[in-house]
Amino acid sequence: MSNKQKPKAVIVIFGVTGDLAKRKLFPSIYRLRQNGNIGEEFAVIGVGRRPWDNDTLRDHVEKSIENSFGMRENLKNFTSHFYYHPFDVQEASTYQTLGTLINELDAEYQTDGNKIFYLAMAPEYFGTVANQIKENGLKEGTGWSRLVIEKPFGHDLESAKKLNNKIRAAFEENQIYRIDHYLGKEMVQNIEVIRFANGLFEHLWNNRFIENIQITSSESLGVEERARYYDHSGATRDMVQNHMLQMVSLLAMEPPIKLTTEEIRSEKIKVLRALRPVEKDQVDENFVRGQYGEGSILDEKVPAYQHEAEELAASNTETFVAGRVMIDNYRWAGVPFYIRTGKRMTDKSTKIVVEFKDIPMNLYYENKTDKHPNLLVINIQPDEGVTLHLNAKRGGTGAFAEPIKLAYKNTGIDGVNTPEAYEKLLLDCMLGDGTNFTHWDEVALSWQYVDALLDVWENKTAHFPNYESGSMGPKEAEELLEKDGFHWWPILDE
Amino acid sequence: MSNKQKPKAVIVIFGVTGDLAKRKLFPSIYRLRQNGNIGEEFAVIGVGRRPWDNDTLRDHVEKSIENSFGMRENLKNFTSHFYYHPFDVQEASTYQTLGTLINELDAEYQTDGNKIFYLAMAPEYFGTVANQIKENGLKEGTGWSRLVIEKPFGHDLESAKKLNNKIRAAFEENQIYRIDHYLGKEMVQNIEVIRFANGLFEHLWNNRFIENIQITSSESLGVEERARYYDHSGATRDMVQNHMLQMVSLLAMEPPIKLTTEEIRSEKIKVLRALRPVEKDQVDENFVRGQYGEGSILDEKVPAYQHEAEELAASNTETFVAGRVMIDNYRWAGVPFYIRTGKRMTDKSTKIVVEFKDIPMNLYYENKTDKHPNLLVINIQPDEGVTLHLNAKRGGTGAFAEPIKLAYKNTGIDGVNTPEAYEKLLLDCMLGDGTNFTHWDEVALSWQYVDALLDVWENKTAHFPNYESGSMGPKEAEELLEKDGFHWWPILDE
Repeated sequence: MSNKQKPKAVIVIFGVTGDLAKRKLFPSIYRLRQNGNIGEEFAVIGVGRRPWDNDTLRDHVEKSIENSFGMRENLKNFTSHFYYHPFDVQEASTYQTLGTLINELDAEYQTDGNKIFYLAMAPEYFGTVANQIKENGLKEGTGWSRLVIEKPFGHDLESAKKLNNKIRAAFEENQIYRIDHYLGKEMVQNIEVIRFANGLFEHLWNNRFIENIQITSSESLGVEERARYYDHSGATRDMVQNHMLQMVSLLAMEPPIKLTTEEIRSEKIKVLRALRPVEKDQVDENFVRGQYGEGSILDEKVPAYQHEAEELAASNTETFVAGRVMIDNYRWAGVPFYIRTGKRMTDKSTKIVVEFKDIPMNLYYENKTDKHPNLLVINIQPDEGVTLHLNAKRGGTGAFAEPIKLAYKNTGIDGVNTPEAYEKLLLDCMLGDGTNFTHWDEVALSWQYVDALLDVWENKTAHFPNYESGSMGPKEAEELLEKDGFHWWPILDE
Repeated sequence: MSNKQKPKAVIVIFGVTGDLAKRKLFPSIYRLRQNGNIGEEFAVIGVGRRPWDNDTLRDHVEKSIENSFGMRENLKNFTSHFYYHPFDVQEASTYQTLGTLINELDAEYQTDGNKIFYLAMAPEYFGTVANQIKENGLKEGTGWSRLVIEKPFGHDLESAKKLNNKIRAAFEENQIYRIDHYLGKEMVQNIEVIRFANGLFEHLWNNRFIENIQITSSESLGVEERARYYDHSGATRDMVQNHMLQMVSLLAMEPPIKLTTEEIRSEKIKVLRALRPVEKDQVDENFVRGQYGEGSILDEKVPAYQHEAEELAASNTETFVAGRVMIDNYRWAGVPFYIRTGKRMTDKSTKIVVEFKDIPMNLYYENKTDKHPNLLVINIQPDEGVTLHLNAKRGGTGAFAEPIKLAYKNTGIDGVNTPEAYEKLLLDCMLGDGTNFTHWDEVALSWQYVDALLDVWENKTAHFPNYESGSMGPKEAEELLEKDGFHWWPILDE
């Protein structure tokens, strides 16, 4: 990237004292600088309620970097770009002084008037902050202004709409960058490339050749210190409405006319529009909810969800969801997309398994009724890569087949780990590329889809807990596929 | 394999003092015994002109085993199954005494009257020996009798027919096992399994999705001490008529109704019948011959073919052939099968590259006119395995693609090398499975195909040498593909 193309901006992080800034944003900005994706023309204003000053923030940033990458020399030059601005979310004057600081830093760091407002804070403040930014003229000036919002974006379709209206009163849709950090993951971004850059797959990518697609995103951790937040959300809001449905839409979308943000989003939205709505009386048939009981993970005993915190004692919140998602369009009619996500499962893994239809005639396996379908496995995390499960001749005499695996492990550029999701998304935002952010229509359609589940489940107490910590979820999740004649492919078998 | 199924036989090797017996047959029989594929119920009669006795042969066998596998204990028990019988190829009495010995050993080793006659000798004797075997009643008795013949099987279609008539006067077609040792190779046998045991490939295995198929079998060695034999043969007879066309037929055949010898051979024969004949005036357009000049291999200077032996000084024999083979049937119309084989090439490698048609629209590569087709590479030797060349997202920002490889290396059963071709073929023959041997119809159709080339080339002196030792052959072999808009995929790039 030549110096000319390096983006310049003042980045304003609201909620800079929080966890996200410390764990993700500071290290990402540091890597962008280290890799030369940005030059010296940037400043970061950390905004928060606490009475910090620049030095407090800079020490804090330094610790965050060293936690992420180990001891570093010459961090002072990097952290000197960071400035702290105390504010009161409701108080206009604190936005006005923020505006003055932005202008000063813009002049000092020659950032061409470009501004990013990153809302790394509780969503109840999104509307207010966006409005204050606009009212106090912070968006104005010569450069561009962009708003980055973290999830959760609403609690259901209704609340999401309200939130969106507030934000849209201050920012245009194309100025809004809604983060779904799964879209920043290397192998999630790879889904479309694997599909559309290979002559092999696209011909087979439909209901004539694919039997089903399985998407699993499992955590081995429980909710731990996030218990209070999580109990108001649950796995459906935390994972299905955003990450899981985003992966479904990337897997199912038609080839875009070209690789512009508009064309890609438009194809993804078409998939979400084609999702078969789950009627209330069909929820039980198509979806399974679960909540973990006690159990053991890596030989360590762990408590049930309801014992994680006092207020969870009678919780009806799901920590696991599995479901059959159907897409009613010409390409996918009849092909189930099975999704599965949960906490305290056997292992941490995000993985997509595309199960191709088996050969029409089993010539090579001794047990003629066995099925040995080809699988394309896309490993999202923690391993990154692609594995193709084929059949080949078993060594020795006789023409018997056995399963083989063709594996590719993504070790990233020069063998270094691939860039972290936030690093890529921040750069995309600075470059004005909204492709890997969610459009409002996607958010709305996803809420519309999961609202049916949420509604049924919230009005009917479940028999929780119903799966053991360290398992792959309740037995009903297995039965969901068995009814269709399938089974979940193991997530550990790579 | 239970003891009941273990085949039993007296194996008579004509030409037991020769190179093939020493390098391939003794080690193969030893491995069959070691692996328990045969039990104690076998005897080997080595037949030759030299005045050896049993002890000479047993020492010779012991040395062969130890050359192949290192020092071994308890070889005496194994070699005690070996007996030497001196003979004169024309002299009936020596066959009669051979018959007596066979009967004695049959009784001693309880081989149920089963007999294999393995002709590991110069082909000019095939007819005589087969006839003497029959005339002197060696085929008779309670068990089965099978004849194994090594290449070359004739010099052209005419001579092959004559030879076949002689042999068929003594043995039935289903008693004749014509060795093409490529058909014993693990990964050659794997071609049909890869094709027919995977849901992915067979849909794509035709002219709608495949652009071309490239088969390379290269040697880095020259002719060396085989000069005299080789100069009467050349690459077309030595490699194309048999091994290369066999691989073409395995790649191109329709799925067999079932995996019986008859059904598979019948499909292979259909491919050979569909080969577009090369008319004499089309030879230059479709085929390239070459003969190596001097050059260097692994930094060592090596002489030209014509300097390998005195009698080669003006040789017109080709040590390299490349060609475009067209199959005129519904599946393959328009898809070139490029074959290439030669001596003193860059490296020793037998490899099949299936080049799939590229994506209809290049979305992901910066240079929009570049082609990055998917390739399925079947590595036959020295490495065994399957590699799929795909495109995936380049790490970092932006949706650019780069080539990736999904690789499977065949390390055989329990990580040990896969069985040697001869080991498998010998066992197949003992079990009466003729699938991996060539039927007369295949031999005849292959000769018919190459006779056109041979005829043109033998009647027109070439400008030899025309390729450097250590290269991939004459430049015309590159141009052959360039005319069609293709290029040879590198053989070393795995």
